[in-house]
Amino acid sequence: MSELVGNLLVAQSGGPTAVINASVAGVIQEAGRHECIEEIYGGLNGILGILNEELIDLNDEKARSIEGLKYTPAAALGTCRYKIDFKKKAGQAAQDMNRLFEVFAAHNIRFFLYAGGNDSQDTAHKIHEEAIKRGYELRVIGVPKTIDNDLPHTDHCPGFGSVIKYNGATVMEIANDVSSMATDDGACCIIEVMGRSAGWIAAGSVLAKRSPDDAPHIVLIPEIPLDEEAFFNKVKETIAKLKYCVVVVGEGLKDKTGKEIAADASRLDSFGHAVLSGAAEHLEEMVTKKLGLKTRSVKLGYAQRAAAHYASLTDATEAAACGEAAVRAAIQGESGFMVKIVRTQNNPYRWTTALQPLGDIANVEHFVPRDWVSEDGFLPNEKFIEYARPLIEGEVKVPVEGGLPKYVVLEKSRVEKKLPARN
Amino acid sequence: MSELVGNLLVAQSGGPTAVINASVAGVIQEAGRHECIEEIYGGLNGILGILNEELIDLNDEKARSIEGLKYTPAAALGTCRYKIDFKKKAGQAAQDMNRLFEVFAAHNIRFFLYAGGNDSQDTAHKIHEEAIKRGYELRVIGVPKTIDNDLPHTDHCPGFGSVIKYNGATVMEIANDVSSMATDDGACCIIEVMGRSAGWIAAGSVLAKRSPDDAPHIVLIPEIPLDEEAFFNKVKETIAKLKYCVVVVGEGLKDKTGKEIAADASRLDSFGHAVLSGAAEHLEEMVTKKLGLKTRSVKLGYAQRAAAHYASLTDATEAAACGEAAVRAAIQGESGFMVKIVRTQNNPYRWTTALQPLGDIANVEHFVPRDWVSEDGFLPNEKFIEYARPLIEGEVKVPVEGGLPKYVVLEKSRVEKKLPARN
Repeated sequence: MSELVGNLLVAQSGGPTAVINASVAGVIQEAGRHECIEEIYGGLNGILGILNEELIDLNDEKARSIEGLKYTPAAALGTCRYKIDFKKKAGQAAQDMNRLFEVFAAHNIRFFLYAGGNDSQDTAHKIHEEAIKRGYELRVIGVPKTIDNDLPHTDHCPGFGSVIKYNGATVMEIANDVSSMATDDGACCIIEVMGRSAGWIAAGSVLAKRSPDDAPHIVLIPEIPLDEEAFFNKVKETIAKLKYCVVVVGEGLKDKTGKEIAADASRLDSFGHAVLSGAAEHLEEMVTKKLGLKTRSVKLGYAQRAAAHYASLTDATEAAACGEAAVRAAIQGESGFMVKIVRTQNNPYRWTTALQPLGDIANVEHFVPRDWVSEDGFLPNEKFIEYARPLIEGEVKVPVEGGLPKYVVLEKSRVEKKLPARN
Repeated sequence: MSELVGNLLVAQSGGPTAVINASVAGVIQEAGRHECIEEIYGGLNGILGILNEELIDLNDEKARSIEGLKYTPAAALGTCRYKIDFKKKAGQAAQDMNRLFEVFAAHNIRFFLYAGGNDSQDTAHKIHEEAIKRGYELRVIGVPKTIDNDLPHTDHCPGFGSVIKYNGATVMEIANDVSSMATDDGACCIIEVMGRSAGWIAAGSVLAKRSPDDAPHIVLIPEIPLDEEAFFNKVKETIAKLKYCVVVVGEGLKDKTGKEIAADASRLDSFGHAVLSGAAEHLEEMVTKKLGLKTRSVKLGYAQRAAAHYASLTDATEAAACGEAAVRAAIQGESGFMVKIVRTQNNPYRWTTALQPLGDIANVEHFVPRDWVSEDGFLPNEKFIEYARPLIEGEVKVPVEGGLPKYVVLEKSRVEKKLPARN
């Protein structure tokens, strides 16, 4: 195969994480080492920006800014949730594909790297297949990203380690707070974390436990339907023993009928759908009513996935390495793969990267195995802990200015458009 | 005055903070330097523990643990919200006072230091007056503590700097997240922070703003009733300009009639009172309905006041110094005062401690001055920023074990009881 020479385009997609920019930094720094890559472009807001020919010149950024992406949270290039959906919107999808390849051709894009979760890997897969169909020489490599940790085949996903590290510290701190206030009345705190269908994030909070009585005392994950009576009993037992109880709940927790417990049928949105009013708030109400316990809730929301000030160095390092590996794979002639993380050894933890066909990844969700959770379903067990523990090791150093993090903002100098505006 | 010799008792009261343990560390370390102080005791769970004669021997703790209190969040001695209320419960109050002085006498307590907010300073004041009445020689000094920053006379309260530092970092990070997802639809995030009647904490988030377009874009404080129309317009303007909008709201925000907006009349608790369902969630619903914007909420709750992993070094240093100053005042013969922080210079920031009579502190609340907020009421101005900026400077170093903070747990070796159990 003769060497492919051309420009590289990297973009980010889906919900941001604390380390998705580290992956982009890895891409840019690795790309800079290879002469076959001429220009390094970023697509603004994922494929949405590419469709609009909104590209930026990443070689125009300061080297210091690129390095700073390794500790800057969220998607510095912008992100989107736009899908190319051949099933539901075939006409639009075909039109989008045409446009994407017009943009690729106009800017001689030969290396396309897409950092994202399930949907984004699906998009990358479709672009890879389309390139073959069209005979347009393009190397497409997916870079894994998702706090949810629900991608299959990879040992874990960049973004996950940082969110459970931050959440773990938060659970520990809240436990200190609640336990110090617990007098004879008892006190309960319900902490809602992200995870709509997979419970990896909620489960990860178990790392805050250094001894059996430590918080979290109960972890509720979407994979295991809530048994209300057993839950109330567990809260009561914990209060009886410790005078306080810290519960962590994944936002997508379901009841025994499979309905999300946060769905509040009394409140409908403008489409007539039940508003999701928050799993923690719902449990708070239940516990208050049923047990008469002083109960408070915390909803970390976006704070958890953006918390670069307490990110995992292991996670950030792996995220950057995935970006680098994606570039190396592309220039070695690979296409249609996602970079995955392979754990080669657990104690001490060792890992490497490898490739997995994108077709194996797209739209497959990876759940917490049932046997990684205690029999009663309320606490991840040693198997989970052994798996998760290495992922939160090490602290990313974030520079500070005036007492607050000094994150990087890119210059985003635009690449001149060559095409008429998108219809 | 002949030198008073005896034992010291320190206790904590009210809601915990990230640095109230630093004040206790200051008390213990300073007390250790003075021969007139024989034993150093801690009261468990504030006066509630003292009433139950639950005292611990702080000289039994490792020096390393005492030093570790300077970075360990929440109340290591436990706290309470118990009040001695002569107005509403005169009989109980008189009984409690008798018991307190029995405990003081049984353990030769001659120095009583109480760390807490308004209510706790009120309790300290009553104990001081009671000691005079009884002719029991006791030195009572209050140590200021409250994230709410609503104590009068002191420039600011230990605990406040740390909560606004953590919240500021969180607002910055959430802004990175929301802005990176903002496509043409626009996105709004509402962050609820603590502060039931005073808006200091919400206002403090303005420090996250390094340039005019930075988040927070709107800050809603309980002192300024919500003007819904003006608020919606401000959100719309911000979205039109930036495509995203970050709002910070103090939990006690009120509407024009003076009612807390979080009070949800459609949900009653078991006593028939409206459940406070969260100011952020309420605004989220309003913005979604009225403006049709994708809106999410975050409720930091206890996480913010316990977040020692991102505490302010200035705050922790001042908290420890307040504890030290309280001991020095007591051995110098003072009683009936609270230590306050006096700002001697702003640029560079310089401060010292002084004393204020407890009678001036108890039950007086200090609010954000109206002229420290923009005319439209939506953003703290330069006066506020000049005041708050120095308070978040510096980072407390927290040791890490297995990727998570290693906080101190006290041994709490009990002092032998000498009295019959409390009735």
